[in-house]
Formats: sequence, structure tokens, C-alpha cells
Amino acid sequence: MIRNISVEGLEQIPIEKQRIELVERKCLGHPDSLADGIAESISRALSRSYLEECGSVLHHNTDQGEVVAGESLPKFGGGIITRPIYFLISGRATKTFNGVNIPADAIAIEAARDYIKKTLPMLNMERDVIVDCRMGRGSTDLQDVFWSCSGKAPRANDTSFGVGHAPFSEAESIVLGISEFVDRTLRPKHPVIGQDCKIMCLRDGDTINLTLAMAFVDRYCSGIADYIEEKNFLTDQIASVAGKFTSRRVNVAINTADDLDSGSIFLTVSGTSAEMGDDGSVGRGNRANGLITPNRPMSMEATSGKNPINHIGKIYNLLATEIAKDCVARVDGIEEIYVRLLSQIGHPIDQPHIASAQILPKPGFEVSALRPEVEGVVDTWLEKTATITEKVIRGELSTF
Amino acid sequence: MIRNISVEGLEQIPIEKQRIELVERKCLGHPDSLADGIAESISRALSRSYLEECGSVLHHNTDQGEVVAGESLPKFGGGIITRPIYFLISGRATKTFNGVNIPADAIAIEAARDYIKKTLPMLNMERDVIVDCRMGRGSTDLQDVFWSCSGKAPRANDTSFGVGHAPFSEAESIVLGISEFVDRTLRPKHPVIGQDCKIMCLRDGDTINLTLAMAFVDRYCSGIADYIEEKNFLTDQIASVAGKFTSRRVNVAINTADDLDSGSIFLTVSGTSAEMGDDGSVGRGNRANGLITPNRPMSMEATSGKNPINHIGKIYNLLATEIAKDCVARVDGIEEIYVRLLSQIGHPIDQPHIASAQILPKPGFEVSALRPEVEGVVDTWLEKTATITEKVIRGELSTF
Amino acid sequence: MIRNISVEGLEQIPIEKQRIELVERKCLGHPDSLADGIAESISRALSRSYLEECGSVLHHNTDQGEVVAGESLPKFGGGIITRPIYFLISGRATKTFNGVNIPADAIAIEAARDYIKKTLPMLNMERDVIVDCRMGRGSTDLQDVFWSCSGKAPRANDTSFGVGHAPFSEAESIVLGISEFVDRTLRPKHPVIGQDCKIMCLRDGDTINLTLAMAFVDRYCSGIADYIEEKNFLTDQIASVAGKFTSRRVNVAINTADDLDSGSIFLTVSGTSAEMGDDGSVGRGNRANGLITPNRPMSMEATSGKNPINHIGKIYNLLATEIAKDCVARVDGIEEIYVRLLSQIGHPIDQPHIASAQILPKPGFEVSALRPEVEGVVDTWLEKTATITEKVIRGELSTF
Amino acid sequence: MIRNISVEGLEQIPIEKQRIELVERKCLGHPDSLADGIAESISRALSRSYLEECGSVLHHNTDQGEVVAGESLPKFGGGIITRPIYFLISGRATKTFNGVNIPADAIAIEAARDYIKKTLPMLNMERDVIVDCRMGRGSTDLQDVFWSCSGKAPRANDTSFGVGHAPFSEAESIVLGISEFVDRTLRPKHPVIGQDCKIMCLRDGDTINLTLAMAFVDRYCSGIADYIEEKNFLTDQIASVAGKFTSRRVNVAINTADDLDSGSIFLTVSGTSAEMGDDGSVGRGNRANGLITPNRPMSMEATSGKNPINHIGKIYNLLATEIAKDCVARVDGIEEIYVRLLSQIGHPIDQPHIASAQILPKPGFEVSALRPEVEGVVDTWLEKTATITEKVIRGELSTF
Repeated sequence: MIRNISVEGLEQIPIEKQRIELVERKCLGHPDSLADGIAESISRALSRSYLEECGSVLHHNTDQGEVVAGESLPKFGGGIITRPIYFLISGRATKTFNGVNIPADAIAIEAARDYIKKTLPMLNMERDVIVDCRMGRGSTDLQDVFWSCSGKAPRANDTSFGVGHAPFSEAESIVLGISEFVDRTLRPKHPVIGQDCKIMCLRDGDTINLTLAMAFVDRYCSGIADYIEEKNFLTDQIASVAGKFTSRRVNVAINTADDLDSGSIFLTVSGTSAEMGDDGSVGRGNRANGLITPNRPMSMEATSGKNPINHIGKIYNLLATEIAKDCVARVDGIEEIYVRLLSQIGHPIDQPHIASAQILPKPGFEVSALRPEVEGVVDTWLEKTATITEKVIRGELSTF
Repeated sequence: MIRNISVEGLEQIPIEKQRIELVERKCLGHPDSLADGIAESISRALSRSYLEECGSVLHHNTDQGEVVAGESLPKFGGGIITRPIYFLISGRATKTFNGVNIPADAIAIEAARDYIKKTLPMLNMERDVIVDCRMGRGSTDLQDVFWSCSGKAPRANDTSFGVGHAPFSEAESIVLGISEFVDRTLRPKHPVIGQDCKIMCLRDGDTINLTLAMAFVDRYCSGIADYIEEKNFLTDQIASVAGKFTSRRVNVAINTADDLDSGSIFLTVSGTSAEMGDDGSVGRGNRANGLITPNRPMSMEATSGKNPINHIGKIYNLLATEIAKDCVARVDGIEEIYVRLLSQIGHPIDQPHIASAQILPKPGFEVSALRPEVEGVVDTWLEKTATITEKVIRGELSTF
Repeated sequence: MIRNISVEGLEQIPIEKQRIELVERKCLGHPDSLADGIAESISRALSRSYLEECGSVLHHNTDQGEVVAGESLPKFGGGIITRPIYFLISGRATKTFNGVNIPADAIAIEAARDYIKKTLPMLNMERDVIVDCRMGRGSTDLQDVFWSCSGKAPRANDTSFGVGHAPFSEAESIVLGISEFVDRTLRPKHPVIGQDCKIMCLRDGDTINLTLAMAFVDRYCSGIADYIEEKNFLTDQIASVAGKFTSRRVNVAINTADDLDSGSIFLTVSGTSAEMGDDGSVGRGNRANGLITPNRPMSMEATSGKNPINHIGKIYNLLATEIAKDCVARVDGIEEIYVRLLSQIGHPIDQPHIASAQILPKPGFEVSALRPEVEGVVDTWLEKTATITEKVIRGELSTF
Repeated sequence: MIRNISVEGLEQIPIEKQRIELVERKCLGHPDSLADGIAESISRALSRSYLEECGSVLHHNTDQGEVVAGESLPKFGGGIITRPIYFLISGRATKTFNGVNIPADAIAIEAARDYIKKTLPMLNMERDVIVDCRMGRGSTDLQDVFWSCSGKAPRANDTSFGVGHAPFSEAESIVLGISEFVDRTLRPKHPVIGQDCKIMCLRDGDTINLTLAMAFVDRYCSGIADYIEEKNFLTDQIASVAGKFTSRRVNVAINTADDLDSGSIFLTVSGTSAEMGDDGSVGRGNRANGLITPNRPMSMEATSGKNPINHIGKIYNLLATEIAKDCVARVDGIEEIYVRLLSQIGHPIDQPHIASAQILPKPGFEVSALRPEVEGVVDTWLEKTATITEKVIRGELSTF
């Protein structure tokens, strides 16, 4: 069956030429990201169990859940958490299928605890954390499973859509670059840097203002002088990373709300503000590409935690992003591309109601010339929609 | 102090001329909207109590909370809810200030129960609902209160932004119009129509496809024939409402996932899918203008539940929307206007880091000519930022 | 089948001649009694629903549950509850049987809320109370139901026992008499008297010391003078009631821990100490006869909340008490009687492993002469064990 | 100050000569005992922290808490827990004192998880357990702490009492002996024996009937034949242990409710019935001496979890038991002794309102001759009441 693919030109000011651009990222230890990460780790664990026990990923949606903040008393050298962080697992999952029992609650709790432990190694899992579970029962339609097992594409769970764009702007690249640099390079050597970091980038013309709210870990910080020194060090490092992505002017400001005189600074016991007042929810933070980009089309759907088989809110956001990236990689002449996939409830997910690619061509390129190649890339990806599912389950695609 | 207001022209295809436009609204009884409504009603109740007891709205953020779905067995003539819907109140609120104790938990529970009762009159509040509360303690900076009491604008709680646009497109107007028509005109006479309704509008060129997922209330539905009749009636009514906003072709489809043969239809005991499997969270549904509009710039911030004094994620989204509407109302020649307000943590909220208005002028109009008037409107609204706070507290501004 | 009934003489000092006698009662609003009352009201509501829907009382045990205290700020004229009282319903109940679904959670929540409302009318059910439910699934053995429907006695759920004694001693009668007088006569006219009252009676020879901890309701108490006046009034009233049961010397002390100077008194907003720090659990307070009597044999089983069909911990305690009372009423010459009923798991409950009556005869009476009549009373009651079940379901037998 | 000590003779049939004697023990893995053990471990952990941080044990009562059963699917060779066991910590504890913050919630959670892990090693702490905490704030009276630090005895928190008796009867010794033998000797070699065991002993004249409900651990049991073999082995072992305490006839029956044909047996995944339907509460099981003894005076107070400084319900039960044992050990001629300690709220705990010892002398002994020595023992123990507190904190006195 031929797919309904539309490739159009787009008339608008390229992102780099717009005066104001805003980009934000909530890093792994931010309460909203914690919620996302837990939700997704639960979905992965359930998917793997379903595959093992039943040969097919059964119905579940764990794209809910709440991080209820604790209370803490951080202090230089090491403070205490006085009220544990409370994690509520909700959503629903298939608990029995065809005579097989899947201990979905137990799997969810284990996945959540495991994820928290890995993501927030400073947190004492035996003291400072409550993981509660009120997950409901989902039911899996036998027919869906047979359909899926017979090699056919699953049917869309909803009339919904996903969006993606490429390539990343300078501001977007900087934000992602900083996040990665902090996680992979800086923190391993500087454990004083907490996992909770919010990066806000405002590009105003040719000036890039980076405002970071970074949690510091108290046990690795001996005092206010140490704190200031670390902040200065980080400011330099981050400016340097940003400089690799742009020739624009870069300003970096970390923890601008600090009041050094009163000692009101962003110091934490565990590296996350969830320990002292900041709650988090699934789907409230980064979009599927890891960013919040008000200058770009965005989907409000939470990507994390949804089942990776037929939930449009998950698959189409991931797929649209992959398609956009791949078009830029394979097709010359694309300045910007925006991909929208729209599903129709009950129809096979490899046959979207419409797959729309909007292209801003580079100077000297015509949309009409790019169209066939782009259509080809889109069609190829739709054909292999299932690879998105597989990658998600193997943890190869980040969802937030 | 002069405000940093930027008014620019915008080069892009007007929304009505773009081929694909998507608009969505989750009506009052949708689980995500329930979460929003509860969060906002708690914030309002707290604000009123703080004003009464302390003369100033104290710090709180209740923009969290979770609706954990129940289980139900709807049936024609009236079924039962077998597992209650669980509402978790989280967030934080000032519980003592200057020697005064404010029973924030009690206020929150009362506001939540009251809102649920009013919004879902079919729900038995004594049987089918659990309202739990794990709200933390917030603390209010004395200085902030004095500042605010002295008539100065509060200081921004965060470096963040808000967005708004005007006027509404046809698709947007249709979605809002249907929502209002169902709530105000249809349901009072047709109690079979539940409060949970998701309206998805896909405009594809000059065809407007409306897909509605509408909960029916089982006690008012005698059987499958009755259900079909009501669906047909609703389809006609909604098509007719939509027709008032557009001359484009309108298709209406309600509950397309129904399988009449197997009896799998969208029937509920209480009028919301939260009774049987669909969880909800604050900030996952409609934006501050009541819509989800992937073709427009959107903020990811939850507007509902945040404190209405200095929380940028709330005030600037509401304010940007009001400014955009007012510009269109007062200034001739605006085809589309997009307003972005960007705050700087710790600075007065009436002095945004930048207030940017992007204008797509109507044919025959120049941005330069519109600029002074638009600047004036923006400046006037920023001057009276406090009116947003007041309207929110009085419940005159919807947040979702 | 002949029943194994043993009637023996008892050699011991009659209760009234023992030097020290202790009797205690936790009245209706005491946190432990609240837990008992809620548990029992849930069991009754479930029993009635099961009978209506399935024609037979299905398996359930709700003899668990926890009252987690709130926090309050009582003050003369009316204070506030700052942290709601949290009621956790646990236990288990049959939720589906033979194709019928019984909304056990909803029934439990409604019964609990209804009981709380009735018992603590001062409590604002919309603000100050959280009723949560984590009740598990019980399963009902089809065979048990058929057995029971065929008119046979149900089979004991456990190898366990129940105890009862009669008649009540003076101290016991006084304690019960005061409790009833406060509930039926005093409070209706004096709403300042809270529902939470602990009556401790120590008889030391011929002196009866009554120590009462009585919650006062703040909105009905204008100040410390008023409080003292009420306490004095109550002291007189209670002494007068006690005097009707005894010619011994009676001392009454109310709220002896009060420190009038510092204002530390037993003042409450709602009439129960559960509002400010005192938790409660099922089965931790009064025994089946409404008393705690360390001078008498006691069972540790919670009577409240257990299913009234075959749960020995409930039925045999109630039955033993009824038998003891009836023996005293019908048979002349009994100074004291102690009844013990011992079950054997899986055997019909009207055929206890042993039914033992121990008799302290009045002067001039011989056990051998009393034996036949007592055996007759015991046998008759065992024959009609089912009447205990019926009375419990109809709410005619108090369980705590 | 001279203490009010009363030593009297007791006229009653010695326990060994009474026809019917009932003794019960819920071993460590029984849900009620789990609740007790957790409550006590929390109190110990808090006491140690308070001592370290503040130099004095501060006010707390954690004699509450609930074990809400999970659901499981045991099977030979190893099954799964499908719904985790939920542990609710409630009660209250001092969280701030004199400027010091004690993370009571964190301490409680850690103590609880640690105790569960140690007691139920088969349970997967990362999957099958939810430990939740809703502990309230207690407040510590500064004066109490000073009083206590000055070496004076603390003041009783309540007008209440404790009871104890000695020596243990044959039936009591047997029950305790079996419990210890299973825990120390059998299980280490036979991991198939779960921690949950209820021992019911009915002595009917000279026949001792032992009925045990013993959880078996599925992963160590290969099939029904294995199960039967183990049961037979255990039956022999337990009969043999019992034989060491008595020359009476002993019958042992294990898991009498088993239905081997239908496969309905007491098989568990984790060794406790809390995994599949049996809830537990603090204070519902064994008394302070480890037994439930309806033939003996009992206190209804939960000993576990109460603060060990001034809570009569804890200290006086433990103290009365120690006194009774010590009297029997030191004074010749005591057949049975019953000790009752009655407090008066606000008075020093080493000065009970009355300390009563009731003695059944051995043939040939007169109470009057025993009195001085018994009085001496009682007085000495009251003098060193504080040693009970210390032993409790060090974990040297079992409370259930």
C-alpha cells in the first residue's frame, strides 16, 4: 500500500536568523527528568519481561508517575535528607495474559529503584527514598498480539501525531553538548557536580546567554570559597565547550539566584533538587530529542514510559526525529526540515494518515528537486517502524 | 525604568495558508485536565487563604499532582466503579508564616474535593474517590512579602518564558467553540454526554477533520441503539457548531475506535476515562489558552497550580496571551502576532529581560507602522502585571 | 452429633474480693476504637452487599487498618486541623465471585467515611480526613458457599478460641455505665465533650479510682475558666453515675495531666486525639465485651472487621460472651462464669473442639447441680451459632 | 521515698492443674510479628540516634504501623510475588530538638528495611517490598530531658499498667522451645522452613496438642512428595523437642488445613504469609514475654515500638516480667507469681502507684515467709528501672 507522504517547501526565517531563540534542557537529575527516566526504565523492563514470558510486548503505559520532593539540610562537608523523596509509580500494565502471570508491580519497582540508584549514586537507597506503586491493570487484546506476531505492523492506539526536526541549531547543539560534557567528562572527575542541572540558552541575535542551575553536592564541597571556585571553574569549562559550537559571543552564568552573603546557594545532599522541594512529573520536561525548543513545533505527548509498540505519542515523536536527522544526513540542500507524522486510531502504524515533511532548502536548492529523495527516506523509515520499537526496548534511543 | 520591548516582523506562511494544521483540546473531564483543574483550584484556595490570614499571597506551588485511574464496569442503565480514582496532591505550600498557621493540606484537600464534585457530578464522592495529600512545606521569604506589600512588582522566581498568540485560527476557534457548546448548551440538556472529551482537529488544506473521543454516561444510555442515536445527534450538532466558524468542509467523527459488534464503546459510569485506566497529570494537556497547537510556539510549563505572584511559568504565559489578544483587538493590520516574555530570575516581573512581539501584518500593512501601538499595548500590560495575579485568584482567567 | 461441652468448678478468689482490679475502656472516639469501628462498619457493609448480590456472605477480613494521626492547633472558641487524619483501609475482600463483581473498595470507603462522619460530627469530612484504601483480593471457596447455603454451619477458618465472662463486676459496670451515660445523656446536651474518652478504673480494695482522659471540643469552650467549670461538672456527674453501681468510695479524676498554668490541656478541634498525634489500630483496644480487663481471661484476637461467618476470632468471642451472660440470667447460683470456645480448623463452627464453662458458684451452690442447666444453655447457643452472624450483620452486637 | 509494694497470696488452681491451657506464639515471620519487629527496630534506631545527637532519648512512639499483604504465586521450585508487600510506618517522632535536626523518617525507613532484610532473607528487597512512611512529628518537653539527664527517673507518660508472670508452664516452655529450636537449629540447615510460623498449644489435661501453621519456601521444595517428607520430618523433630519439656503425651500437627489432593498447601515464595493475604499490625500478636496466654493476666498494650524511656505500656510489661522471673530465681517456694505494676501519669516511673506481686506458694511455704524477699527483689528492680531502658536500646530484651 502506498503511503501518504507529503513533502512541501517552508517559507520562514531560518532559525539562526531569527533574533530570539530559546532552548532548554533538564539534565538527568532534574526532577522532571527523573520522572521521565523512571517511567521509561519501567517500560523497558516490562517490555523485556513480556517478550521473555509471552513472546510479545504486551499492553502497558507507564508514562505517568510523580516525584514528590523531600526535605533536606545540606551543609558543607555533608548534610542530611530529613524527609525522603517519594516516587509514585502509576500507569497500567498487563498483569496476566493467556494464563501467564507477569509481576508487573515488582518489575516496575525494581526498574525504578535500579534507575534511581544508577542516576543518583549519592542518594542512600535504604534511607532517603520511598518507591510506591499504584499501577493499574491493563488488558492486552489477544488479536493485537497475533497481528503483531504475524509480522504485521501494530495498529495505532490513538489519533495523534509526532514531530521532529533537523539539524540542530547552534543553540541546541550547545545545550546538548554541555549536557553531555558535564555527564561524561566533568562529573566523573568532579563529583561535586550534582546530576540536577537545568540549562537555559537564550540566543539574542549573536549573543548566546547560557544560564545554568546546577546542583552542587555538599559532601564534596568544603565551604563557600570552594563553592565559588568550582562555580568559576565550571563557568570557564562550559564557556569553552560552547565555543566549540559557535563563533558567537557566549555568556555563561551559573546559579544566578545564589546569595553568597546569606549562604543561600544551590547546595544539595544528593545532587538533585528533588531532595528539597522540587517535584517532578513525566512528560513535563524535555521532548523526545532531549530539548525544549519553543521556536520549533513541539508535541505535548510524554514520550517516556509509553509502550513502544503502538503508542503514537512515543513512536511517532521518535520516528519523526530520526527521519528528520536522516534526511539531513542523506539529502544535500536541506537548511531545515520539520517532520510531522499523524496517525489514525486503529490503522497500522506504518501507514500514517499523513507523513508531512516541510523543508527550508539551502540557498540554491529547490524543494521540487529534494522531494523524491526525502520521500524515499521517509518511506524507508516508515517501512521499518519496528526498528524504533526494538531500539527503544534495547535502550538505544533516549526519550527525553 | 524603560522596558526592553522588541517588535519585529515575521516572515512565514500564515497559519490559514499552511497545508496541515493540528489543534487539540482536552476538555474538563479529561484526566489531564482534571489534574490541571485540581491544581489550579488548590492554588486559588491557598491564595485566598493567604490573603485573608496574612494579607499577602505566600509562596506555594501546587503545579503537580497525579490522577491515578480507577477501574469500572460501565453498563447500559448504570454500572459501577470497582476501584476508586486516586488523586495525589503534591507540590508545596507555606504552612506557617510570621506566627500564623495556614492549614494548607486541609485547604488543598477541600479545594480538590470541591473541584472534583463540581466537575464530575456523576462521581460518588463518598465511594469512588480517594484524595490523598503529600504536599511539602514551602517557605516564604519575608522580604518578598514586604516588597510586594510596598506595591513593587514581585521578583521572578526563575529564568523562564511565556508565549501567546492571537488571533485564533479557524481550527482553533472551532475546537474552543465546540468545547464551550458541549459544556454550556448540550450537556445541561443531555446528561448522557460525559465531561471527558478530547477534540482533535486536523485541517488538511480546506478540509477540517474533527475527531472526538467523548465519554458517554451509562446511566443515561439505555442500550446500543440509544448510544448510536446520541452519537449521530452529537455528530450533527458539532458539525453545525463548526460550520459557524468556517466555510471549509467539515467532517466529524466521534469515538472512531468503537466496535459496536463487540460492544466495545466509550461508555463510562462517571463521565471520565479516569475511572477506567487513563491517568492524568498537571501540565500534560492544554496550554494556557486552552489548546494544544503544535503549529504555534508553545511553552512546556504547566500554567495550572503555580503561584500567581511571581511564577513566570504561569504569569508570563497568561500575560503573553492577553497581550496578543489585546494587540489584535486594539491595533488594525495584524494578521498574526506572537508574544514571548522572557524573565530573569530575581528581577521584577514587570521588567522582563525581553518582551518580544513578532507580527505578521495583514496585506497592506507595515510592521514599522504598527510598532508604536503594539509597543504601547505591551508596555501597558507589563505595567499592570498584577492584574493577571488578581484575575487568577478571582478565577477569571482559565489556565488550561 | 453430641457437642464436647465441659462444665467445671473454679477455685479462685471472686473478682470483687481481689484487692486490685483494673478495668479500662476506650470510648468511641479513641483512635483505637475509631479503627475498630471503621473495620467493623466495613465488614457489615460488605456482608450486606454480598448477601444482596450473591445470596451469601463472601470471604473478607477487614480486621486491619490504621488511623494515622493528624496535627492540629486547637484554641478556645475554635482552632484548626493543620494535617488531616489519614485512615488506611487494608485487609482483603472478595471482589469477584461467580461472575458477579462487588466493588469492595468503594463499599469500604463509603462505609468508613460514613462511620467517621457519624462518630465524629465535629470533623470536616471534606478537609480534615483522608480515607485511603489498599485492600487486597480475597477469594471465596465455592464449596464453602454451597455448604453454607445448604443450611450447614460454616467450617472454622482457624484453630483458635474465644472467651467470655459474666456477670460484670462493679468496676466493669461502672466503666460501661459511664461510657453510655456520656454518649447518650451528657454529650447531646454538652457538645463540649469530645468523643475521645479513655476510662481507667482502678479498684484498690474498697476504693474505686476513676481516671478519665476526655477530649474537650474547643469551639464550645470559651476559655480556661469554662474548661475548668466543665471538668468540675463532669467530675460530679461521673461520680454520681458511678455511685449508682457501688457503695464503695469513688474518686474521679479527669485529665490529670493538664497543666492549667501553661495551658497544656486536653483541648481538641474535633473531639478526638487522632487529630494531634495519637494513632490507632484495629484490635488494640477494647475486647468484644467493650472492656479491657487484665483480671479476666482475654483473647488477643481483634473482633472487629473479621468476617462474621466463620472467623473464630470474631464469632467465638461474641458467642462466649453471650453464653456467659445467658447462663447468669437463666441459671441461679452462679457467682462468676468463664466460657472458652476452642475451634478446630475446617470443622463446623457449631461443633467446637471444646466448649468449656468454668463456674465459681455462689455460696450454697454446687457446680454439679448447676452443670446440667449450664450445659443446656451452652448447647442451645452452639445450635444457633448463626444468630451471632445475623446479629452482627444487622449491627445488633457491638464488637468493641 | 518508700515504694508502694504489695505482696499477697493467691488462691487459685495452679496452671498445670487446670484442665485446659492455651498458649500461642507467632514467630518472627508472622505478619503481626513482622509489624512488632519493625516497630521495635525503628524505636531502637531512633533511640540510638537521639542519644548520639542529643545525649538523651527524645520522645517518639512508633508502636503503630501496618503490614499490608501482597499477592504471590508460589510454586514448587520457585514462584513469584505479584503484588509487593506494603509496610506503612506511622507513629511519631521528634524531628527537631534544641536546634538539632534528626532525620527521623530516614532513620525509620532504614531500620525497617534493614529489619525486613534480616528477618526475611528470601524476600527481594528491590522488588517485592514497599516501605512507606507517614510518621508525624512528636515534640519533646525540654524539662523531661533535663530531668532525665540529671539522673532522675523519667515521669510516666500515662496512667497504665504492666503485667508479668513466672515461671513458664510446660506448655509455655514447649512453645518457646520449639520456636527457638526452629529458628536456631532447624532453619539454618533446612531453608525450606519459612520464617512465618504460628504455634498453638492446647493442653487438655495431660495431653498436649501442638498445632503449627508453618510456611514452606517454594524454591527449596521440589514437589508434593518433598513437602510431605519435610512435614513428617518437622513433625518428628518438634515432637522430640516438646518431649524434653514434658512427660505428658504430645501430639503434633502441622498445616492441618492442607489439602494435598487439590494442592492447597502452605507454600510461599518468601517464607511469610504476608506475601499472600495476611496483614499484620503492631501489638496484635505476642505479649512482652513472647507468648499469648489467655490463662494468664495479659496487658493489651503493644510493647514494641513504644519509647523505652517513660512509656509505661512498654517498660512496665518488660519490668514486671523480669521481676517475676527474678523472684522465682532468687526466692525458694514460689509455685507461681504474678506481678502487676500500675503507674500514675506524671509521677516518676520508679515510683509506681502500686507494685503488686501475687504469689501461689509451693506446698509447705507460706506467703508471709516469702514476702520480705519478694519485696526486696521488687524494690531492687524498681530502683534500677533504667536498666530496662538500656537493655531495650541495646536490643537485649525482646519485646514480642
